[in-house]
Amino acid sequence: MTITFESEQTAVEVAPEQTVLDVAHSAGVNIIATCGGRGRCNSCRIKVLAGEFTPPTEQEITVLGHDGIARGFRLACQTKLLNDGLVRIVPPISERSFRILSATDRQEYSLDPDVRKRRLVLPETSEEHQSSDFEEIRALTGLPTYTGKQQVDLSALQTLPSTIFHASRDVTAVLWDHHLIGMEAGDTTEQVYGIAFDIGTTTVVGYLIDLRSGKELGVASELNAQALYGGDVMSRITFAQQDETGLHKLHQRIIHTINRIIEKVCEQAGIDREHVYEVTIVGNTCMHHLFLNISPIHLGVAPYLAAIRERYVVAAEELGIQIAPRGRIVMLPLIAGFVGADTVGVVLATGMHKGSNITLAVDIGTNGEIVLGTKDRLVACSTAAGTAFEGAQITHGMRGATGAIDRVVIDDDVQCHVIGEVPALGICGSGLVDTIAQMLDAGIINANGRFRREHELEQAGVKPRLRERIKIDGKKKYFVLVEGRQTDNGEPVVITQQDVRELQLAKGAIFAGITMLMQELNIHPDDMTELLLAGAFGNYLDTRSAVRIGLIPALPPEKIRSVGNAAGLGSQLALLSGKAKLEADHIAKTTQHIALTNRPEFQVAFAEAMAFPEGL
Amino acid sequence: MTITFESEQTAVEVAPEQTVLDVAHSAGVNIIATCGGRGRCNSCRIKVLAGEFTPPTEQEITVLGHDGIARGFRLACQTKLLNDGLVRIVPPISERSFRILSATDRQEYSLDPDVRKRRLVLPETSEEHQSSDFEEIRALTGLPTYTGKQQVDLSALQTLPSTIFHASRDVTAVLWDHHLIGMEAGDTTEQVYGIAFDIGTTTVVGYLIDLRSGKELGVASELNAQALYGGDVMSRITFAQQDETGLHKLHQRIIHTINRIIEKVCEQAGIDREHVYEVTIVGNTCMHHLFLNISPIHLGVAPYLAAIRERYVVAAEELGIQIAPRGRIVMLPLIAGFVGADTVGVVLATGMHKGSNITLAVDIGTNGEIVLGTKDRLVACSTAAGTAFEGAQITHGMRGATGAIDRVVIDDDVQCHVIGEVPALGICGSGLVDTIAQMLDAGIINANGRFRREHELEQAGVKPRLRERIKIDGKKKYFVLVEGRQTDNGEPVVITQQDVRELQLAKGAIFAGITMLMQELNIHPDDMTELLLAGAFGNYLDTRSAVRIGLIPALPPEKIRSVGNAAGLGSQLALLSGKAKLEADHIAKTTQHIALTNRPEFQVAFAEAMAFPEGL
Repeated sequence: MTITFESEQTAVEVAPEQTVLDVAHSAGVNIIATCGGRGRCNSCRIKVLAGEFTPPTEQEITVLGHDGIARGFRLACQTKLLNDGLVRIVPPISERSFRILSATDRQEYSLDPDVRKRRLVLPETSEEHQSSDFEEIRALTGLPTYTGKQQVDLSALQTLPSTIFHASRDVTAVLWDHHLIGMEAGDTTEQVYGIAFDIGTTTVVGYLIDLRSGKELGVASELNAQALYGGDVMSRITFAQQDETGLHKLHQRIIHTINRIIEKVCEQAGIDREHVYEVTIVGNTCMHHLFLNISPIHLGVAPYLAAIRERYVVAAEELGIQIAPRGRIVMLPLIAGFVGADTVGVVLATGMHKGSNITLAVDIGTNGEIVLGTKDRLVACSTAAGTAFEGAQITHGMRGATGAIDRVVIDDDVQCHVIGEVPALGICGSGLVDTIAQMLDAGIINANGRFRREHELEQAGVKPRLRERIKIDGKKKYFVLVEGRQTDNGEPVVITQQDVRELQLAKGAIFAGITMLMQELNIHPDDMTELLLAGAFGNYLDTRSAVRIGLIPALPPEKIRSVGNAAGLGSQLALLSGKAKLEADHIAKTTQHIALTNRPEFQVAFAEAMAFPEGL
Repeated sequence: MTITFESEQTAVEVAPEQTVLDVAHSAGVNIIATCGGRGRCNSCRIKVLAGEFTPPTEQEITVLGHDGIARGFRLACQTKLLNDGLVRIVPPISERSFRILSATDRQEYSLDPDVRKRRLVLPETSEEHQSSDFEEIRALTGLPTYTGKQQVDLSALQTLPSTIFHASRDVTAVLWDHHLIGMEAGDTTEQVYGIAFDIGTTTVVGYLIDLRSGKELGVASELNAQALYGGDVMSRITFAQQDETGLHKLHQRIIHTINRIIEKVCEQAGIDREHVYEVTIVGNTCMHHLFLNISPIHLGVAPYLAAIRERYVVAAEELGIQIAPRGRIVMLPLIAGFVGADTVGVVLATGMHKGSNITLAVDIGTNGEIVLGTKDRLVACSTAAGTAFEGAQITHGMRGATGAIDRVVIDDDVQCHVIGEVPALGICGSGLVDTIAQMLDAGIINANGRFRREHELEQAGVKPRLRERIKIDGKKKYFVLVEGRQTDNGEPVVITQQDVRELQLAKGAIFAGITMLMQELNIHPDDMTELLLAGAFGNYLDTRSAVRIGLIPALPPEKIRSVGNAAGLGSQLALLSGKAKLEADHIAKTTQHIALTNRPEFQVAFAEAMAFPEGL
């Protein structure tokens, strides 16, 4: 029994009980499985072109919908073969972006990191031969001869004579770009690592990469320790301004978080931190500044000017980052005060800057960044509206962790899925979006977001068991998702009228941002070839619910895709390839930032986008 | 009554009692006066072309000799006008090199320091205008736009937003080369300073320069605090190798010495250290390495390889140098393991690399460096033979400080001049060279350096009062220069047979070095246009005595000149001019190092040079 992946054109033998995802992985065919193959996201989506497969699982129906399944879509992690089959890996984007990280020869970016190692056995020289240790090394490593540009770091230079002496002239030179950044005794050419970071306002993720093979050796994430001083960017800026040592504290905390992740991934992979020579960093402009210990003061007031936007490189020891002392920290470039290197990362990873099809990318983290366009023109904007989706300002809101309701179906009654299959603790962003979408469909709230009154409920045909779930506590009206007896702490998990309003503000801001970009490019939703949801939230989000509540334009489901942590992937690409770094520079330089707050049209669009779309 | 300086072509009014040096200085005509106008050196030598002057002083006769005076030479610091006169400033070299440091428009190197300041009043920008603080500054300061080359130091970047904010957008940008290295509130464009250093094995000198006018604002020197660990380069290298913390100690000591000098010159001139933005450094290769905290381990063993030779730049804060944190420390390039940036400085200051006349420069410090040639080819070598001239290994040797015998005349009896006109404490290098020259002429020692025996003395016509000064103490034979009753401590100051041998070794090494360079270029002493004595010792040295003992070739006196601290002057030129820095690079790259120890011819030349020339 064999399966053929359309892109590969070769049939692969399938063992019994293997899922399509298993087969793909063992055959070296890369399919994204962001949720780890648990049927919780649509990143491993495939389209069946021929052959018979096991029937769709409950998860597949939830994620893809009956429509999607009817049109031949399946999740590779859930699907097994019944006889020979032919499938297409969709979305092509994941194919492209993840291929890069494979060791195969089908990489769009060839493996071309700025870090290189060269083992050198230095020849003995004579006194007549006018030279120096560094000149000998330069000649052997192929660095260009001196023309006034400094090529060796002081601390590397300081170790030259002793290392050469103690290693009996058998050494390994560590090069970064055209600089000698380290000198190691003996042959260490097999240990060359880098770590790609995505610094989110809430979460920081680091990917440890073997720079010889391009392979990912580990990934670790931590909460951004700055969160103690405020959940969103504006509260961090305020803290930096108002507390005399605020900037210092915020800076120290992110450095600490980064160092913890470095320690974690290196320990997991069993490698020495001193063999990590480059760290790439994407993050929003405020995270960028705080990481570099630059006051974000200007980011808090119009015209929201960054201190610097272009790619910036610092030696690790200058910032206390615990890798090789002269390893380089590469800050990818920024687009504007509120459109940061994370957005550059999204564009780089999705290849929007090289495509001809009109693509919309929406990255909803603590902030929401939106990019629209083609290789000919990209426009971007930012909305500070994401915290509701991370559980902030929502009565029982919480992050997407164990105990969070992440999927909700409301039909005759309410069915909730809880992460970790434990009693519910609260509700996370994807659960909230599901809930509101289903409350709209069930008639519990109207298109303005208002809870229907008693007499309206019957008119709207709301089922009795649902009506029983609507409670009033003084002036507070709420809908009970999970009764207290079923929750972890005995408190019911509810959605209040206020929660609905918070969601309306959040989704309204994002939709209004999208509207502004479409206006700027004079584009109608139908013109779009693809809508990409980036980031963890975008990944777990039910796209039909997102369309239902009007968070994103109502594109056909097959045009909407979750692309995982595209920002982080962009960071990885930059780590692996000098060409990708240059493309990042180009993206940052050419992507046009559309300032929203200044435009009266935005206020209009925002007001309009607050309402929910009428039901289909 | 007027005087005309030939080079200036204009008559200058002379006030009564003004020396020619006074007149020159008040008229802005630069004449070197290394000894401070005390008639102790020949740096202010002039040639009388017309007019009547006061008769020669005793000092002039000592320094210039009757011959020199007969040929019209005088010392500007000693000479006053009797009626209108015309003089030529000799040597032309000092004219050239010191002009550079004047504020006149006749500078060979135009004032073109790498440090620049630009006052900026930053315009308000709009949110629509995609920019950053740094981009605004870059545009206003005329830095080139970003093409991948980093243009701003992290700590400068870190201060941007707050400085701009608190100074209400009225700021001064500090630029070094094409980098933004600092940002200051308000208009500080009038405070732009640099310090040029010459790090000697024994003495460190710093010159504070106003980089707007090129004026020298102050000079300070200190003993190199490393001397505690050894007087010469080899003993420092040994200490660095044998003591585990040796390198660290030596490094810390030189940083400390440099910081003391910075403090001293800045205090003298009443300027803020934070307004010093560049420090240039010349020194021998070992001093260069110890300053940068690079192990000198390779300098101690063949092939005596430096870690790096090319020009090297470090930010002040990286080394703990207390100027502006991101001010630049510019290490001028080296030629070889024992021919350092000090020699590059000598060549740069004397212009040997641009002249067509064959010039020999001898810089005798703790080491002796020698350069010979023309713009077409320069060869250099080094001899580790200078400590005797600094008083080391000499029975009553001492540095040229108060109490040191620095001039000796032996005729019927011995006449000594003591620095500071105090009772003698010992003898310094110039006194030693005088003594040996005079002992030769008086017949006390023979051409082999041996004290003449009793019966030989009479034959040689040695005067009775001199014979009485020759004593024997056991096997030790010595010559008494100053009786115990006339010295500071009651001990006589004597020259022993061993002292003569030490001097022979020292002067033999230098002469042999000169010989090797002449052989390399196939040159005879008569081919030389000029012999330049650089360094403090060369400055105070009586050139006739130097010729008499065979320290230098027997050129006619007018061809021999002391040029003062040429290495330090080279350091100043590099500070003042980017062009001079490039010339220094060129000098270091093209000057050919002649390794002496490897060559059997050197041993022959050395053996031959140990003897003294026969009397004239």
